[in-house]
Amino acid sequence: MVSEKMKVMVANGSQIRAWFEEGSRLAAIHGKESVFDFSLGNPNVPAPKEVNEAMHQLLDEEEAVELHGYTRSNAGYIEVRDAVAESLNQRFGTNFSGRNIVMTVGAAMALNVILKVLLNPGDEVIVFAPYFGEYRSYTANFDGVIVEVPVNTKTFHPDPEEFADRITVKTKAVIINSPNNPTGAVYSEETIKALAEVMEKKQEELGTQICLISDEPYREIVYDGVNVPYLTKYYDNTAVAYSYSKSLSLPGERIGYLVIPDELADSEQVIAAASIANRIIGSVNAPTLQQKMVAKCLDVQTDISFYERNRNALYNGLTELGFECVKPEGAFYLFVKSPVENEDEFCAKAKEYNVLIVPGGSFSCPGYVRMAYCVSNETIVNSLPKFAEIAKYYKLKK
Amino acid sequence: MVSEKMKVMVANGSQIRAWFEEGSRLAAIHGKESVFDFSLGNPNVPAPKEVNEAMHQLLDEEEAVELHGYTRSNAGYIEVRDAVAESLNQRFGTNFSGRNIVMTVGAAMALNVILKVLLNPGDEVIVFAPYFGEYRSYTANFDGVIVEVPVNTKTFHPDPEEFADRITVKTKAVIINSPNNPTGAVYSEETIKALAEVMEKKQEELGTQICLISDEPYREIVYDGVNVPYLTKYYDNTAVAYSYSKSLSLPGERIGYLVIPDELADSEQVIAAASIANRIIGSVNAPTLQQKMVAKCLDVQTDISFYERNRNALYNGLTELGFECVKPEGAFYLFVKSPVENEDEFCAKAKEYNVLIVPGGSFSCPGYVRMAYCVSNETIVNSLPKFAEIAKYYKLKK
Repeated sequence: MVSEKMKVMVANGSQIRAWFEEGSRLAAIHGKESVFDFSLGNPNVPAPKEVNEAMHQLLDEEEAVELHGYTRSNAGYIEVRDAVAESLNQRFGTNFSGRNIVMTVGAAMALNVILKVLLNPGDEVIVFAPYFGEYRSYTANFDGVIVEVPVNTKTFHPDPEEFADRITVKTKAVIINSPNNPTGAVYSEETIKALAEVMEKKQEELGTQICLISDEPYREIVYDGVNVPYLTKYYDNTAVAYSYSKSLSLPGERIGYLVIPDELADSEQVIAAASIANRIIGSVNAPTLQQKMVAKCLDVQTDISFYERNRNALYNGLTELGFECVKPEGAFYLFVKSPVENEDEFCAKAKEYNVLIVPGGSFSCPGYVRMAYCVSNETIVNSLPKFAEIAKYYKLKK
Repeated sequence: MVSEKMKVMVANGSQIRAWFEEGSRLAAIHGKESVFDFSLGNPNVPAPKEVNEAMHQLLDEEEAVELHGYTRSNAGYIEVRDAVAESLNQRFGTNFSGRNIVMTVGAAMALNVILKVLLNPGDEVIVFAPYFGEYRSYTANFDGVIVEVPVNTKTFHPDPEEFADRITVKTKAVIINSPNNPTGAVYSEETIKALAEVMEKKQEELGTQICLISDEPYREIVYDGVNVPYLTKYYDNTAVAYSYSKSLSLPGERIGYLVIPDELADSEQVIAAASIANRIIGSVNAPTLQQKMVAKCLDVQTDISFYERNRNALYNGLTELGFECVKPEGAFYLFVKSPVENEDEFCAKAKEYNVLIVPGGSFSCPGYVRMAYCVSNETIVNSLPKFAEIAKYYKLKK
């Protein structure tokens, strides 16, 4: 019964999801407190109280037929889209209006919508290793071809020259994810300018249009006051995929948006196509209660100090034990060098201590592992003695 | 920028959506009460009070991290899926468990998920005219080919012989929609048995598997005690796409499910593939608050008497004026024969009276129009004098 394409997907599965399910299994056997599950980016900080308050208020005050009905446009309530645009303009000095915003079922759907709009079969999508493995599935959904720029393990930031080498007449899109999953790196303005310059030059040289897609669900989760440049200001052909999953701690509710600026080539057709794609892909429209909630919570965000405390505890704890880690500037992931070449071996060893971590191969970066530290601080503190034993096993430090 | 496939979609648009947007435009000019908008199936009956009560309760009582978090399985909360399965078993004598249920972003997504799981490029999907035009888009999403069984304008029910003639080795799926959009027809047990027999025979003859997809968001909206057979009981290779959009009046919230019974060929792989498809298509999981709400509202449904009153008023009103209509047994649509061969002309004429109706061409059934009567009763009553003028214009009756 199953199609050839889906057979491949079933065979490959999602390693992250597999580890997450393994965590559930182990927790059932050993008790939740004895399992240290760093597998999934499922926020452990509750949604800010304003989120539930806004929902209560909407349920009490809005007409049910309007609140729970189809939105007139598949792109979402125009008043919500206007409010989102206005909020972005105030924060980033952009010049959007509601028509530049398509409300979506999270950033995952925003990415699928823009890729559906852009890709002809065989078109190439450039990504920078290490990267979120789902980009492979999303690109395959539309018969696109993933082209990887290899990782620079010195900086974990994109290398403009390596990037330029991989752009061809087939390059239709480039996905950037900063703050980054899985490294926590935040790309600097300098890097962004360099990448923009490469694309401008290649567009002119090849006579093509290359769409930069900024996947930024972690925009607000940054530490030490680091700046996250707003990409539409550096390169005209930029679309932004955003999610409230992390900033408002509600990944299960599936609410986010896609930004298509007027400066993007053929913006009018791209906007029209995105609204249609949002409908026919099966979303129809983003969940309406959540759309209206978002408009009431534009200035709200989750408590970052919690993640910062975790980052410090985990980064300091592991480096003191002799592990080599990329220091995260944002997001809630720690990328750790495997003490053995094959990181699957490291993951298996960690599992013996009920510690669940995800192999870097999932992110096209073997030799490393990802730890999601959006867990309780207790989990981190209690996992450190386990890591001490693992460090001892690998003879990391006297 | 826009892909070739999406260019076609933009050019074709959705006629229903275009009429819906035209309704908004006219309402802004003439006032809402002077526009009679029968274009979109957007329920006008508010969600039952239990729906908002359940959401309030969940927001108050559940841990935010659990309530708004990713579900462990992409198929949804297992306790919700178990509850849905149990409810179906009680109502229809089926034998499902939670693993047969995948919670989805409405029925539109359930259809996209199952088609993504099934279709190889070039596979054929059989539909019975008249049918919901979105099936064309959903099938095109996976490079499938729509094969139409022509309408029988005597019965508006599927003709088993015409159906048998269109089954080939390429036939992978058949979509049935009963209660039907746009006719309101409910397919009898006799019809279902006849279709099942055709498929059984063809499967054996051709050595293929043909999946029957029952799209049934209108299951609960039926009149005069008519019976809607539960299709998995008549044919093993049946999947069911369901939505709470109509039964609980919340189409904007995007909550529904897909049923994959154990009896379906390769069910284990199909279930695994559907869960993965739900993730990579961009949904990740169905909205979590709505999943939990549904589990609390399994015995709740919207007030059907409202639609029944509308059906009677509109059907009786129009037939008395000399219009020829299919008498709806379910759903909230009236399918009306155009007084002129080209129904676009009829729609344009109606628009002169601020009456918005959708051409049958959208449903592959030219010569007819669809009216969605999920509007206020006042709209229907006040539209009848307009229809009287239109009837007079077309000299329908002395």
